[in-house]
Amino acid sequence: MLSACALAAAIRSGDLAPAEVAARCAAAIAEREEEIRAFTALDLDAMQEQARRPDLAGLPLAGLPVGVKDVFDTVDFPTAYGSRAYCRHRPAADAPVVRMIARAGGLVAGKTSTTEFAFTAPTTTRNPHRTAHTPGGSSSGSAAAVAAGMVPLAIGSQTAGSVIRPASYCGVTGYKPSFKLIPMLGSKTFSWSLDTIGLFAAGVADVAFGASAITGRPLAIDPAARPPRLAIVRTSRAGSASPDADAALHAAMRAAERARASIREVTLPPEVETADDAHAIVQAYEAALALADEWDRHRDLLSPQLVAYLEQATTVTPEAYDAARRTTRLARHAFTDLVEGFDAVLTYSAPGEAPVGLASTGSSIFNRLWTLLGAPCINVAGSTGASGLPIGVQIVGRFGRDRAALTAAAFVEKAIRAA
Amino acid sequence: MLSACALAAAIRSGDLAPAEVAARCAAAIAEREEEIRAFTALDLDAMQEQARRPDLAGLPLAGLPVGVKDVFDTVDFPTAYGSRAYCRHRPAADAPVVRMIARAGGLVAGKTSTTEFAFTAPTTTRNPHRTAHTPGGSSSGSAAAVAAGMVPLAIGSQTAGSVIRPASYCGVTGYKPSFKLIPMLGSKTFSWSLDTIGLFAAGVADVAFGASAITGRPLAIDPAARPPRLAIVRTSRAGSASPDADAALHAAMRAAERARASIREVTLPPEVETADDAHAIVQAYEAALALADEWDRHRDLLSPQLVAYLEQATTVTPEAYDAARRTTRLARHAFTDLVEGFDAVLTYSAPGEAPVGLASTGSSIFNRLWTLLGAPCINVAGSTGASGLPIGVQIVGRFGRDRAALTAAAFVEKAIRAA
Repeated sequence: MLSACALAAAIRSGDLAPAEVAARCAAAIAEREEEIRAFTALDLDAMQEQARRPDLAGLPLAGLPVGVKDVFDTVDFPTAYGSRAYCRHRPAADAPVVRMIARAGGLVAGKTSTTEFAFTAPTTTRNPHRTAHTPGGSSSGSAAAVAAGMVPLAIGSQTAGSVIRPASYCGVTGYKPSFKLIPMLGSKTFSWSLDTIGLFAAGVADVAFGASAITGRPLAIDPAARPPRLAIVRTSRAGSASPDADAALHAAMRAAERARASIREVTLPPEVETADDAHAIVQAYEAALALADEWDRHRDLLSPQLVAYLEQATTVTPEAYDAARRTTRLARHAFTDLVEGFDAVLTYSAPGEAPVGLASTGSSIFNRLWTLLGAPCINVAGSTGASGLPIGVQIVGRFGRDRAALTAAAFVEKAIRAA
Repeated sequence: MLSACALAAAIRSGDLAPAEVAARCAAAIAEREEEIRAFTALDLDAMQEQARRPDLAGLPLAGLPVGVKDVFDTVDFPTAYGSRAYCRHRPAADAPVVRMIARAGGLVAGKTSTTEFAFTAPTTTRNPHRTAHTPGGSSSGSAAAVAAGMVPLAIGSQTAGSVIRPASYCGVTGYKPSFKLIPMLGSKTFSWSLDTIGLFAAGVADVAFGASAITGRPLAIDPAARPPRLAIVRTSRAGSASPDADAALHAAMRAAERARASIREVTLPPEVETADDAHAIVQAYEAALALADEWDRHRDLLSPQLVAYLEQATTVTPEAYDAARRTTRLARHAFTDLVEGFDAVLTYSAPGEAPVGLASTGSSIFNRLWTLLGAPCINVAGSTGASGLPIGVQIVGRFGRDRAALTAAAFVEKAIRAA
């Protein structure tokens, strides 16, 4: 994998030119894309042409190539949202995040594959670690492109578990910031209360670097931080964790403890646990409205699973939705109280290794609650399951305290590597 | 003006056919549009054709024609967002609110004029009460079209004061629901924390009818409600209210009191008052990102006032934005505490009558705080200023208690009419 931090440092010191990085990415894509199928649109010539701009080294992203999930609008690439209904779509404007990347001196290498409207109908993208396995979804292409060393940085989005899960399956770092830290505008909305932009990169320092560069916020790892106080949270869904997931969490706990983190097992209060069910209600109610046009006009171009989902979704009443929103609000307060006294939560990223086959992108059972709470989440890579595929652990922080969450994640990452 | 409630009732009782209503609207538009310039796109033939559908009378909107502000995407009409940069733009999908209108049996008569990206650069729309005066903005065409009797219902949006102010200037009812009651998706975003869909109609019962029909929520006026307890709030900006605005507020207070409402003057706590300044910071920070593409690619097609605004807007730091968001959160809590014990706030809608000329759409000084708080707001029409132009008063409710706010507004409206 390509470390965004290391590449940017080498560019800034003059050891490497942006054009050399772009050439390296172009070569990796040329070599592996036919097998991995991470991209839906590419323009490697344009990327390499842009990489010759003389001002790039001085910009925050230093000319690094970036993969952009194909739910975000781009003027320079077709934008299909993973849907047959948009197969010839060319947006009129770039999504703000695409402009933020460009302003920061990032080069959009291409659009990365997404499940249909970032829901469940899979892409043909393969897991670079074992190509018969799913890379996870919905940000399938972004996770796979980073894992395959094609780009040092990629943008995805998470409505349930679409950043953390594929990051875990592909053995990369995934970072879902606090809700709305980066604007989701210019994307195809599935759920306006849940859709959240995320980043993929090799390590925790790399996603922190990428997020800092794109947002202009001070999100880099705090080098002066003391060992974190970690709340170990298994949730009432712990029974869905495979022995692999349990082993990865256990190993991360022990490694963090050895590195002098404080560790305490914590049970979520009922107000937080019950909010897990609210996620499905919020998502369904909003998806039925967000995809109203596609439902009314292009139903024949939607996947059977999306049609079945939206059919059910239209039965969610405004009253049920309002109640789920209230449950969410109470859960957010209760979670904030809970993490008072901790630096972060350490929990499962996914139920296990990437499942075999490309028909399903896996389960978001260990992700959707945190998405609903709007909390920053990071998949920390570094462990492997029984079959040798990657499996991560998840750091969850307090809303708006992204730097603290990233710093705790970097600590756990280092501890796992040292173990 | 056309009462949406009365027309829908006549259609349901069989006294009137949807096609007759459509023909009446088409005739009013044909008669006055050249002078008023409320629409940017019209298809009166298509509307009248659709009005013959046999199922309309049984649907919530009963086939009523609706004007849709041209910040909302429509497949069947060009969508320019009031901007030269989008003069040939045809969106790929209808905004969810447009589909909600269609599903409810409303007929989109056309697109109504908006200031550039719903900011300040004015349209050529004229105030139907006196055509040398502005109708207000940014929802200029929607307010004017309802005031001119062209349509019984129109959709607008408010980021600062873009629904309540034009409603006051045009002597119509404007209703800005609680934030996100109706999804803003498929609109050109100016500020994602502030942009809120609003409705225009003749009377309070008409906007309540329209909002109920479009959302499927029970928002109709509560006929069993007792006379409301009204908090009279002038704010620290009361010095900007003209004698006309003061007289209108005073008249509404006295009329409500005579109708047995309880009236108490209330001073806003400092946590709420200071939030007024937060509006500008939130709006500027978000606009600079929301319009990133237009700034980067089409600056030559933006108005000088928008260019000047965005130039300043880019200087707002993430820290200042975060602080403004915290101020907003505290203000929302403080306002909720304040209105405990009241049914609604009664306050100014606008500083005075519609100003003369079309160069400015007037001031949002009495609107932006309530938009920031996400509170439901209703302009109650019925008064006139010294020069004979309309001037309204504003009912502000508690977030999420839209029916109570509408019911209080209907009470004040009736009291003003009776006075």
